[in-house]
Amino acid sequence: MKSDIEISQHCHMWPIEKIAKKLHLTPDQIEPYGHYKAKVSLPIKDQHTKQKLILMTAINPTPKGEGKTTVAIGLADALNQLHHNAALALREPSIGPVMGMKGGAAGGGYAQVEPMEDINLHFTGDMDALTEAHDTLSALIDAHIHHGNQLNLDPRQITWHRVLDVNDRELRNCVVGLGGRFSGVPRQDSFSITAASELMAILCLSRNLMDMKKRISKIVIGYTFDEKPVTVKDLGATGALTLLLKDAIKPNLVQTLEHTPTFIHGGPFANIAHGCNSILATKAALNTADYTVTEAGFGADLGAEKFMDIVAPRIHKTPDAVVIVASVRALKYNGGMKLADLPKENVQALLKGAANLKQHISSMKRYGKPVVVAINRFAGAPDAGTDHEVQVLKNYITKDLHTHAAVVDVWGQGGKGALDLAKIVAKDCNEQRTFHPLYNQDDDLVTKLNKIVKNCYGGKKVVLSSKAKAQLESLKQNGWDKLPVCVAKTQYSLTDDAHRLGAPKDFLIHVRALEPKLGAGFIIALTGKVLTMPGLPSHPAALNMDIDKNGKITGLF
Amino acid sequence: MKSDIEISQHCHMWPIEKIAKKLHLTPDQIEPYGHYKAKVSLPIKDQHTKQKLILMTAINPTPKGEGKTTVAIGLADALNQLHHNAALALREPSIGPVMGMKGGAAGGGYAQVEPMEDINLHFTGDMDALTEAHDTLSALIDAHIHHGNQLNLDPRQITWHRVLDVNDRELRNCVVGLGGRFSGVPRQDSFSITAASELMAILCLSRNLMDMKKRISKIVIGYTFDEKPVTVKDLGATGALTLLLKDAIKPNLVQTLEHTPTFIHGGPFANIAHGCNSILATKAALNTADYTVTEAGFGADLGAEKFMDIVAPRIHKTPDAVVIVASVRALKYNGGMKLADLPKENVQALLKGAANLKQHISSMKRYGKPVVVAINRFAGAPDAGTDHEVQVLKNYITKDLHTHAAVVDVWGQGGKGALDLAKIVAKDCNEQRTFHPLYNQDDDLVTKLNKIVKNCYGGKKVVLSSKAKAQLESLKQNGWDKLPVCVAKTQYSLTDDAHRLGAPKDFLIHVRALEPKLGAGFIIALTGKVLTMPGLPSHPAALNMDIDKNGKITGLF
Repeated sequence: MKSDIEISQHCHMWPIEKIAKKLHLTPDQIEPYGHYKAKVSLPIKDQHTKQKLILMTAINPTPKGEGKTTVAIGLADALNQLHHNAALALREPSIGPVMGMKGGAAGGGYAQVEPMEDINLHFTGDMDALTEAHDTLSALIDAHIHHGNQLNLDPRQITWHRVLDVNDRELRNCVVGLGGRFSGVPRQDSFSITAASELMAILCLSRNLMDMKKRISKIVIGYTFDEKPVTVKDLGATGALTLLLKDAIKPNLVQTLEHTPTFIHGGPFANIAHGCNSILATKAALNTADYTVTEAGFGADLGAEKFMDIVAPRIHKTPDAVVIVASVRALKYNGGMKLADLPKENVQALLKGAANLKQHISSMKRYGKPVVVAINRFAGAPDAGTDHEVQVLKNYITKDLHTHAAVVDVWGQGGKGALDLAKIVAKDCNEQRTFHPLYNQDDDLVTKLNKIVKNCYGGKKVVLSSKAKAQLESLKQNGWDKLPVCVAKTQYSLTDDAHRLGAPKDFLIHVRALEPKLGAGFIIALTGKVLTMPGLPSHPAALNMDIDKNGKITGLF
Repeated sequence: MKSDIEISQHCHMWPIEKIAKKLHLTPDQIEPYGHYKAKVSLPIKDQHTKQKLILMTAINPTPKGEGKTTVAIGLADALNQLHHNAALALREPSIGPVMGMKGGAAGGGYAQVEPMEDINLHFTGDMDALTEAHDTLSALIDAHIHHGNQLNLDPRQITWHRVLDVNDRELRNCVVGLGGRFSGVPRQDSFSITAASELMAILCLSRNLMDMKKRISKIVIGYTFDEKPVTVKDLGATGALTLLLKDAIKPNLVQTLEHTPTFIHGGPFANIAHGCNSILATKAALNTADYTVTEAGFGADLGAEKFMDIVAPRIHKTPDAVVIVASVRALKYNGGMKLADLPKENVQALLKGAANLKQHISSMKRYGKPVVVAINRFAGAPDAGTDHEVQVLKNYITKDLHTHAAVVDVWGQGGKGALDLAKIVAKDCNEQRTFHPLYNQDDDLVTKLNKIVKNCYGGKKVVLSSKAKAQLESLKQNGWDKLPVCVAKTQYSLTDDAHRLGAPKDFLIHVRALEPKLGAGFIIALTGKVLTMPGLPSHPAALNMDIDKNGKITGLF
């Protein structure tokens, strides 16, 4: 089997104008970035009632990931093979994890988005623009304090920390402003990865340029010595930050190996942020295609919950079907097997781990829309699961869980490997079902959290740390406690402990802090040990990468 | 008079393909970035012996700058009005100063490069890619130390610091790696502005992708506990960093208001780095136009000296003429007048300050090539100088200094305002003159520095701090002491003290540190108080910027 990058390098991409033409986008509605990438010009229209939206999510994955993006790509390609006029809306990768261990975020095998080399690196510069805008705000804040601090900002209560698009644990905690009176004011600070920036969430949730500007103005950057919140508007930086993101807000258009139009835009992680691509990308797809396949990050407990409860109300469109990606190897892993043992057949572990899938099916069905399971076959991988295991799993899903299921091999076959899935999904999409939100927007914060924990994670309730309790009081005083909640939680478990696999019951979720994100329009609840700045492993993927004199790249997956 | 951005917004740009066509570049030799920007595909050929190269430099400026970029643009436009087939090669702006106080780096008035809004912001992402590549290397270094430190790197001797493209004094000195054993190793660090990154110098000095890769491999990132240098190659990060800069290395093509093709690429500052655009941009211009106008940053003591001694040997091409931009206001300022008093006529101060111009003329003539002075008129500005002052200055230059001079008003008139200058320069360019390098590559470091101080600055000699002396010993031990030297020095004075204006004599230049940049291929000599991370003023330019719902920008100059 060829590597992802070898397959990619043999792909014959169409000029991006030809992809745009498939969507009836005229040359002046796109801005080319090289010959195979483009940004879509704003504004993007706001009407998309008849088109079908398919949400791709997954069970709790192994550390290798379960191929959710790959299946999304394969499904869209398959829908197009069936002449259904489909497009994709996906997140854009972050360079930090690409250089670390995650692997590309542009699919794999014969289900890839191209040009994968660019998409996995700087792409059209959105991530870099976010870093620049974020840290420009940091510089403006510290310059304000340095030059007399007219706003009376408490340097100990600056909540706008810095970001970089790197996996760099060294920057998690730092002291800045050292070196004497000409070099700022000493204070403690931290860096998160750019994907965790509130500006990323804002970019992903904005309907247009002015909506983004309004959201930016509301960002709380810190508190005064007398505990009053200070915003970007107070600082006067709204215009400059909006300017710095004027191009980043435009969705990017690329193509799959099978030339399916693909909007890739915005890349918040689902474990530390809301985990969904921009609503402008989703709207662009809904405006131009009959079927839009979009993906939410990590398991259904993270990305899909946030899509349903944060994103859907903002695009005024709920998914017409939900596809949950599961694999034999991940269910066996959830059933207690070690990573190294996964190649061995073990039906008992598979069925034990299937409890994890059961929980995700139940939590997704709760929203009222059709749910389909895609069993990702990973053809050729040593831990892909035996034919027998796959059959056992499929029987369990269809007979015991009364849920549609299809085996897919998009990695090995592209769209052809997802034709069964595409037929089921296209049919289910046309069922008329009512959407049932998980919580009411008027519920208080703890009620919202408890509904998420009970109905989505299968746990008991939340417990707030003393710090979180104090923060909740502050949220109430400021009138912010009715905002939606965005849970930051490990992706490996339904609980807040990465080591508790399968489908635990009656567990508590420990909220260690609550962070108001007024621009994004939600409250982040940090649970367990989840960190907003990843680290690099002892042998980072970066060390395998190379490029030769002809520009040919190796080691990028 | 309209503001720069108002003029810019009324400009009718040609599609970038049409600009490329002027240079006989085919559509597959460029990669469009939107409709009005493009990158030039690599490789760029290496032959350009007959074409004329004009180097634009200046006297020591007021804090407002003396319009060097503007005059370069106007001169190229004027050469094209005279049917001379001219192109520009310029540096790209850094967002840090744009948000601070510097003003745009895309010219001004009727001598601008378009689209100025994009050029002054993220442009095609080069600066952001450099930031990302630089800090990825930092993350790899700290991850290496964290995971066992096989290379035996001394955390106290990491010489690869971090960068951001911001003016942020708060980051000049910091302590990172706090937070316990899962979050790195505590150590002191610092951030510079991206323009000061060695990767920026490498990007600007590389002849092609493989040359860049080789240079990257040689970067010294720090020293072991037993004082041995450790390089990027030792760490194994050469391929990944080259990959991250694969697009950034391609020169960018844009146009002036008068549609003169303009290559804008690379943006090292001349006070803290080598201050010249990429040699690939200069080569791209030399390959496609008959006359190339390029610019070196700040005064002739900084950018032009580095162009002559560092850049010219690497492109195997010396300038055919040097243009020194001077203004009445800057000479009066150098003659001792305060900024606020400059609108007043004062011939005495003017002639006193003209000593500064005299020094720069003499230092540039030393290289053997024709020197022309452009008196920048700044029409309409209150401190533009009276007609009498301008005439006095012109007489002084032509009669007392025996140097060609032309009055220009490119800000008010575009190319038309530089026709006299263009005629003189085009004629002088065709003189056959021999280039005399300032120093021999084999001179030792102190000899090189002394030759620069004497012949270029008009001073006496260098004095090394005890730290610099120790570093010189280390350079000798490593065999690096014969590399060219890149002086980091204030731009406001020929000396290393920003307050000593005019043309002081017999002064000493104090070298406080010597930093080997093996990838760039030079040694940086840090003098006086010059800092590699600027700060924002009390009212940063960012606070005046805005964008409306139609995307119309205000306050960006």
